[in-house]
Amino acid sequence: MSSNPLRIALAGLGNVGAGVVKVLETNADLIARRAGRPIEVVAVSARDRTRDRGVDLGKFAWVDDAAALAEREDVDVVVELVGGSDGPALTLARKTLAAGKPLVTANKAMIAHHGLELAEAAEAKGVALKYEAAVAGGIPVIKGLREGAAANRLHHVYGVLNGTCNYILTTMESEGRDFAEVLGEAQKLGYAEADPSFDIDGVDAAHKLSILASLAFGARVDFEAVAITGIRHVIAADIAEAAALGYKIRLVGLGEANARGMFQRVHPCLVPIDHPLAHVTGSLNAVVAEGDFVGRLLFQGRGAGEGPTASAVVADLVDIARGATGPTFAMPVADLAALPSAPAGERRGRAYLRFLVADRPGVLAELTAAMRDAGVSIESLIQRGAAADGSVLIVMVTHEGPERSVDHALEKLEGSPSLLGAPMLMHILER
Amino acid sequence: MSSNPLRIALAGLGNVGAGVVKVLETNADLIARRAGRPIEVVAVSARDRTRDRGVDLGKFAWVDDAAALAEREDVDVVVELVGGSDGPALTLARKTLAAGKPLVTANKAMIAHHGLELAEAAEAKGVALKYEAAVAGGIPVIKGLREGAAANRLHHVYGVLNGTCNYILTTMESEGRDFAEVLGEAQKLGYAEADPSFDIDGVDAAHKLSILASLAFGARVDFEAVAITGIRHVIAADIAEAAALGYKIRLVGLGEANARGMFQRVHPCLVPIDHPLAHVTGSLNAVVAEGDFVGRLLFQGRGAGEGPTASAVVADLVDIARGATGPTFAMPVADLAALPSAPAGERRGRAYLRFLVADRPGVLAELTAAMRDAGVSIESLIQRGAAADGSVLIVMVTHEGPERSVDHALEKLEGSPSLLGAPMLMHILER
Repeated sequence: MSSNPLRIALAGLGNVGAGVVKVLETNADLIARRAGRPIEVVAVSARDRTRDRGVDLGKFAWVDDAAALAEREDVDVVVELVGGSDGPALTLARKTLAAGKPLVTANKAMIAHHGLELAEAAEAKGVALKYEAAVAGGIPVIKGLREGAAANRLHHVYGVLNGTCNYILTTMESEGRDFAEVLGEAQKLGYAEADPSFDIDGVDAAHKLSILASLAFGARVDFEAVAITGIRHVIAADIAEAAALGYKIRLVGLGEANARGMFQRVHPCLVPIDHPLAHVTGSLNAVVAEGDFVGRLLFQGRGAGEGPTASAVVADLVDIARGATGPTFAMPVADLAALPSAPAGERRGRAYLRFLVADRPGVLAELTAAMRDAGVSIESLIQRGAAADGSVLIVMVTHEGPERSVDHALEKLEGSPSLLGAPMLMHILER
Repeated sequence: MSSNPLRIALAGLGNVGAGVVKVLETNADLIARRAGRPIEVVAVSARDRTRDRGVDLGKFAWVDDAAALAEREDVDVVVELVGGSDGPALTLARKTLAAGKPLVTANKAMIAHHGLELAEAAEAKGVALKYEAAVAGGIPVIKGLREGAAANRLHHVYGVLNGTCNYILTTMESEGRDFAEVLGEAQKLGYAEADPSFDIDGVDAAHKLSILASLAFGARVDFEAVAITGIRHVIAADIAEAAALGYKIRLVGLGEANARGMFQRVHPCLVPIDHPLAHVTGSLNAVVAEGDFVGRLLFQGRGAGEGPTASAVVADLVDIARGATGPTFAMPVADLAALPSAPAGERRGRAYLRFLVADRPGVLAELTAAMRDAGVSIESLIQRGAAADGSVLIVMVTHEGPERSVDHALEKLEGSPSLLGAPMLMHILER
């Protein structure tokens, strides 16, 4: 073993940053044996020097301007945990790579938006840009796709990528409660942010999906092409009806590579109860990848939190210490395919539709006529008698058909006075 | 990308060998982009030159003596798919490493028995010895533990490691049939070997467990220390009674590192129905690793078969092509701990006990007295009235207690004329 330590600068000392310090201290000996050399933090940068983070930070050099870490002579690798797709995080990332130093980051937004630029900068200097912690927390799924599945043409990658949404959906499921109530509780418990929109509107999952899709398909990251729907409009009745039909509801990020290009969607989905994703509960994450030789692989674990995320950051550091790196997205940026965005309307599948309607004659005829006129064939239909507020719940599951037809049917119904609120459309996971 | 190919020799052209050729041909372009250079088979060795393997082998050099592959000047890496812990496989492995060439193998028996010797040989020459395909087929679990979880002190690693056993157990489960019948059918279908003992007696799972435990715990491989019980004595009634109690039966390989050392056991186990391993059906494999920071990780996929196993072999080749290798067991052999074998009797847990007894007075009293005398406390007991053959089925689940006490109780009952055959003891997975 070399006694020459790998010297780390940490930018950002929130939970994950403090976690990285704890991991490197607690398991210093084991990590040095695996890395072939010690890994030591030498410098840090954070807004607040006085906050108690539960670890001794006194021995590190403190730097006010995070970007200055990139240029320190005593730093071999910079770990960026500042967050945000642009701003100080991006400045630090650019400076680090320009200085010819490897960068480790947990920043999914930055990789989704600027990953290609940063990967090219890393290639130009022959240094590593690693981001295992950016997707699915402690689960080594970046490594699993990038290296473990390297022999395969992967055609699908999908999973439960946002722990906050999964906590909310599975709590709604187990307790029969409504979205707003569970969200409020999750915020109180610290499981959801004060401004939860990045999570519950699906943006965070979409960042992660765009990274997974790039790795899986050998394609340029294309976050803008992800179709995103969050979980705000899922009601307790949706979960109950889905359960009666043999499904769980999960926020699924789905990437597919086919002859038309690359399709990417984040959407609340009906998942058959015997599918592995149906067993992913609470704040767990899971990723499924399907390849031409390996078949279906599943990776599951804790997708967030101090310990798991720090575990992923340190795994990247061990790889760097061992010299086991390579191109950011598994191949040089020039080799990544610029896949066109495959249109959703061309897809076929089954859909769950839920309507809240007024309790008056002819409403069911109106709905079913709209389906017929759009060419949508109905596999099953449930109507539940009027609730206390006079609304009637109608749930349909369609036969397999073009997604476009279902969209047309809903367009026909737009503005109908029979509808109390917008209908809910969820696709059924057919993998 | 370098146009300088990585030149491979393949020893053994069974399903997996033919699969490796197919993978490398089918995905040649994608693999070259990921590996940074083409990967090409140049020489092969197999007993039968004439068998149709569904791939064109005419362009490769054929070598009669596999060991000669190690010394060919046109070969950069040898892939050993001959099988068997000793004999030609071991000779080839030794010669390859002695010649300073990297070795890739799917041979779990050889790694379990001779892995340390071979790892030292690889270190001496500074070349890679890789074996992703040796454990859990296509699932990148060697990489997941060795690199993905490198930041953690892993304290448990366990899983469903043998697809044949899992196919038999889950077919018994879904069809209510008995072991011998399902095994016979599995043999006809090619899911079980003509001589199935390596699989059903747990030896294959034990080979894999000893490798996982080494990686997880930073310990020397110690196959001899694995306590092994197979699934031969599981009867349909065990599966039915376990189901009634809320469990599935799985052949679980369990490794644990604790203050007393390393505990390794392969054993049919009762797994709670809400545990991830309860959802592992058919010939799937799954591995769970639990670490101090990452928490619980699950890796699941196809544990055998041409495509998945070849996928793992080629992943190792891509790593070698990229130069991303490192020590065989995650750290140099000299750094691996020689952990003592922790005694099973010190363990505490709950157990399932099943007796087939004669239908006569006093038998139940005899059994329960033996339990009491050994200090075993019974949580639940089920007695099913006499079967057509006059036998009575008695199932007990114990409270948590020392495993030693249950063993003592069974020793007391040994030779009792009340027992029709040996009792069945299965531990309950408490993780």
